[in-house]
Amino acid sequence: MPWPASVNPGTGAIAIDSGFNIAITGYSDKRLEAAVGRILTRISRQTGTQFIGGKPALSIECHGAGENESYQLDVTTTGAKLSADAVTGALRGLETFVQLIVPGENGFEVPVIHIEDHPRFSWRGLMIDVSRHWMPVAVIERNLDAMAAVKMNVLHWPLTDDQGFRVESKLFPRLQQFGSDGDFYTQDEIRHVVAYAGDRGIRVVPEFDMPGHATSWVAGMPELASAPGPYKIERTWGIFEPTMDPTREETYKFLDAFIGEMAALFPDPFFHIGGDEVEDTQWKQSARIQGFAKEHGFKTSHDLQSYFNQRVEKIVKKHGKSMIGWDEVLAPGLASDTVIQSWRGQQSLADAARKGYRGILSFGYYLDHLKPAAFHYAIDPTGGENASRILGGEACMWAEYVSAETIDSRIWPRAAAIAERLWSPASVKDVDSMYNRLSWVSRVLDWVGVEHRANFYRMIDELAGGKPSEPVRVLASSVEALGIETRRDARKYTSLVPLNRFPDAARPESEQIRALEQCALKSPTAEDIHIALAEWRDNHALILPLAAGNSMIREILPISENLSTVGAIGLQALKYIQTGQTPPASWVAEQRRILNEIEKPKFEVVLAAVRPVRLLIEAAAHTSTAMKSRDVRSVTNVPVTRPQPF
Amino acid sequence: MPWPASVNPGTGAIAIDSGFNIAITGYSDKRLEAAVGRILTRISRQTGTQFIGGKPALSIECHGAGENESYQLDVTTTGAKLSADAVTGALRGLETFVQLIVPGENGFEVPVIHIEDHPRFSWRGLMIDVSRHWMPVAVIERNLDAMAAVKMNVLHWPLTDDQGFRVESKLFPRLQQFGSDGDFYTQDEIRHVVAYAGDRGIRVVPEFDMPGHATSWVAGMPELASAPGPYKIERTWGIFEPTMDPTREETYKFLDAFIGEMAALFPDPFFHIGGDEVEDTQWKQSARIQGFAKEHGFKTSHDLQSYFNQRVEKIVKKHGKSMIGWDEVLAPGLASDTVIQSWRGQQSLADAARKGYRGILSFGYYLDHLKPAAFHYAIDPTGGENASRILGGEACMWAEYVSAETIDSRIWPRAAAIAERLWSPASVKDVDSMYNRLSWVSRVLDWVGVEHRANFYRMIDELAGGKPSEPVRVLASSVEALGIETRRDARKYTSLVPLNRFPDAARPESEQIRALEQCALKSPTAEDIHIALAEWRDNHALILPLAAGNSMIREILPISENLSTVGAIGLQALKYIQTGQTPPASWVAEQRRILNEIEKPKFEVVLAAVRPVRLLIEAAAHTSTAMKSRDVRSVTNVPVTRPQPF
Repeated sequence: MPWPASVNPGTGAIAIDSGFNIAITGYSDKRLEAAVGRILTRISRQTGTQFIGGKPALSIECHGAGENESYQLDVTTTGAKLSADAVTGALRGLETFVQLIVPGENGFEVPVIHIEDHPRFSWRGLMIDVSRHWMPVAVIERNLDAMAAVKMNVLHWPLTDDQGFRVESKLFPRLQQFGSDGDFYTQDEIRHVVAYAGDRGIRVVPEFDMPGHATSWVAGMPELASAPGPYKIERTWGIFEPTMDPTREETYKFLDAFIGEMAALFPDPFFHIGGDEVEDTQWKQSARIQGFAKEHGFKTSHDLQSYFNQRVEKIVKKHGKSMIGWDEVLAPGLASDTVIQSWRGQQSLADAARKGYRGILSFGYYLDHLKPAAFHYAIDPTGGENASRILGGEACMWAEYVSAETIDSRIWPRAAAIAERLWSPASVKDVDSMYNRLSWVSRVLDWVGVEHRANFYRMIDELAGGKPSEPVRVLASSVEALGIETRRDARKYTSLVPLNRFPDAARPESEQIRALEQCALKSPTAEDIHIALAEWRDNHALILPLAAGNSMIREILPISENLSTVGAIGLQALKYIQTGQTPPASWVAEQRRILNEIEKPKFEVVLAAVRPVRLLIEAAAHTSTAMKSRDVRSVTNVPVTRPQPF
Repeated sequence: MPWPASVNPGTGAIAIDSGFNIAITGYSDKRLEAAVGRILTRISRQTGTQFIGGKPALSIECHGAGENESYQLDVTTTGAKLSADAVTGALRGLETFVQLIVPGENGFEVPVIHIEDHPRFSWRGLMIDVSRHWMPVAVIERNLDAMAAVKMNVLHWPLTDDQGFRVESKLFPRLQQFGSDGDFYTQDEIRHVVAYAGDRGIRVVPEFDMPGHATSWVAGMPELASAPGPYKIERTWGIFEPTMDPTREETYKFLDAFIGEMAALFPDPFFHIGGDEVEDTQWKQSARIQGFAKEHGFKTSHDLQSYFNQRVEKIVKKHGKSMIGWDEVLAPGLASDTVIQSWRGQQSLADAARKGYRGILSFGYYLDHLKPAAFHYAIDPTGGENASRILGGEACMWAEYVSAETIDSRIWPRAAAIAERLWSPASVKDVDSMYNRLSWVSRVLDWVGVEHRANFYRMIDELAGGKPSEPVRVLASSVEALGIETRRDARKYTSLVPLNRFPDAARPESEQIRALEQCALKSPTAEDIHIALAEWRDNHALILPLAAGNSMIREILPISENLSTVGAIGLQALKYIQTGQTPPASWVAEQRRILNEIEKPKFEVVLAAVRPVRLLIEAAAHTSTAMKSRDVRSVTNVPVTRPQPF
């Protein structure tokens, strides 16, 4: 995953054993050599095999450095060959090769296959907000590794927002000194991340949001604001008043110097200036700013923002970059090489394209809403005409409700579905197939080092205070965490509220529940279902002792009790199905009512276990032929189609 | 864990919230400051809390740098104070503080407590073999973090053995060039590890095994051997012939230069020369060496080794170090400040002490035998008289059957039981209490970053080829991996055989099985037991689909089938117990026979699930009073006594 442009499987395989080795036969450079070293380490770990050289089983032939991402991978029983025009293509092909490794008849092996592959879109991004909650360099590094594994190629890195100024300015050190709690990236760290990303064929596009979302700028430099300070960084979420003053020449002088400093730090040709959600209270309350607007004939605050954007765009261009902004920057007079990133929707993006602007879609790819992978997978960036102006899309991870500990499980594996949408041919869109491969790639990402799976176990142990926590895990696997839209109303969150409770440990999408749903549809009497239902029914009794003296467990007892109820209802439904009896209509109605009640969001999670049980009830209600014997063959354990695992 | 010398719990607690902070009020240095930073990061992660300063809830007062390990920790409802004579003591106290954090009535908190603590032994070591299988720096780092968490203070680091020469010599680069597959620590890496350990209050004692176990030395420098080469490094396990020539002055000239180079790299006052298991074939076959022996009046090869040792001891001393060697170095004429490390036994150590030598016990602490923690816990280093000469003990992790991926689960958590034996008062020896705390500390170590728990899940996913692997996890949790004594006879292992199979994923001791045993003894009709038995009975059907085309799953099917059998037998026994019926003697005899058969080691693991089921059969066989109702209260989920978690 993402599924390649063209795949032809064969028969046979090459072994991954201690004699396995990789040779570079064509063009080579440090980046390719380093990538080969990293891949060998990963394969060695994944297969438990120590490599001691030997005749190379995989040879890599590329023709030059470059960023062309296409590659060809040919695995035969006598060896594998990876060909690419450019090193970046070879990097993509190496990730494909690793995903091909499977346990076979004689240990690990790579099946015979021929792959020709190239991306559909050239911009396949992941945006990681580091202002709302601070993300140390290690978080960025492991997410870059994960991005590389699913062939994403742009890290969009917003470094300023109301809650934090996250980059060191040597020219204006007050920015990070007053704009963070000491949690910012030094310039050395920035250079390290840019190089780390570059090694993996990933570009880094920084964002400095202006003129709104600017509280952290003005905490140290109140003179930039449209109203007198003092200011301090925000601890809460929302849209805030502090806005840069677009009327003062000093603002642009400062931005010229600052953008110059940052442009030198980030080699990418694009430079993101945000431009979203400008709150115009300060502008409206200032007689001076209103006078300036009148003098220039600006009718609305948006006109004033457009003036600001056009001034900034000239500065950005002066420092050798093309500007990117969110939808709101679109206005008459905007430079034609500006790229529009759309959070508003495909229509907004299509409008921009019609006006000649290049665009990137983020609408529908907001990971912080914690929607199912299938939701994101269904969103396509192109809207018909002007398709060539659509560069691609970006998954966005806003950080109001994630910490360094939980962010991985909010990004992965769902972002891999977006990565596939952006890389693979548009015709690749079967949802079941996607989920099977997502389940596989989730584990690949674990082996790569991203912590979405490890953190789940760790956080549950922490919640349980280090006691054996299996029943909490059972409960957490039967719920799905809810996103920003639910959480912002659920309780008063600020950046100081710990993100260590059950809804933080729970995952956005339960792999187990999906498997049970599939099973309930295809084979409702399979052993898996019976086992799960009995486990749920009995689980509450096992959780109770953990709640003693532990408020974080106690608060989830109502959900746990509901899970027991759902398990019991499911077992009843199963009994009807197994005996071929049709349940009384009153019973069916009552269970539907109970399940509807139970399925309402509670404590920022939804009890996903309701879904397969609802299917069982409907199956029981509509069953006319008796199923006399239980089907003991499992189907939920074979969801991944082999031998093509990606 | 380890349990402190003196503990007085109180009532109440201090909160760990965003205002939590640590202040250094007395002596301070970079080491203490760095430790405080690390601890804050760990607490922040464990509790999901972002710290933004505030009135310090914990103040640290120590009087100077130094290595005194005692400390005092006083937690009251208004704050906590950690006092220590020296920085090292403060480091130990900080680890205690972190272990005190529990989820309470209002989030995470530290209960009121007064602790006075100091170690029983001054040498509490862990030896990590890096020759049989290569261990990258990251493995050493995370194990140092874990050692610090359980207050171990010596990393014993054997850097040479027949299978690998693991350190860079700048004077004699042929050593690592021909003595490794490129897998060795550079001198910069050595310095990094020594500093990393020192930051955590851990000394690093290197070992250079001589004159035996010397194949990797002579691979690059055959002139050191007692017979002409050429040699290459060993890929198999055992004791090999290549032995240094003790008769040539060139040998000592080389050792003088080499030891000088290494002595400068390792600041510790001790220097380990191995000296174990000298194979004398080369000596016996050399007329020249036999002539030399005769000339000097040596009667045995051991006399010749003693001569060698005494020459080496003078070199070691010349470079400012005291020598350590294994039992075999003990012989008349050995310098009195030599330290004897005993792998042979407490008697051997007592002999050495009687002769005036200081000693370290490793017999009984060999982790690679994969014995239960209780076995190691029962071994005490002191043998009565001359107790003052016993410095302490060392857990030894030999690496024939571990890789960088599996080593953590072979060391942890069992080494924590040894750490407690060496730190805590001799009177702390209750095994049940130890296991309860071991279960807790296993999770603490996970949070510290050691991978014994994460790797378990990861390896099982790898075995299952990335498919949902829950049934394999159930099976793996019901078995225990066997150690070197079983594995060396089970199949032909070399350093090139991957360590990626089921016995590598399985853990040496099953926490779940121990909990079920406890439960079977105290409350055989508890819900937990019924659930586990039913899960085992049904598990085989769920594993079967995973075995298709996967030899590594297929080979464990017989064990899986046995687990189903054990589950079914247990459920039968439970039925007898629940109904108060006494089973027929023939039934009991037959089940005992079946379980005895099933419990025999198979595929390098033992089916530990047999143990609780055997208890159930005995309970059924001897039950006279009927237990009419099932006891639904769980006992296995509350094994950890609170509020003292360590």
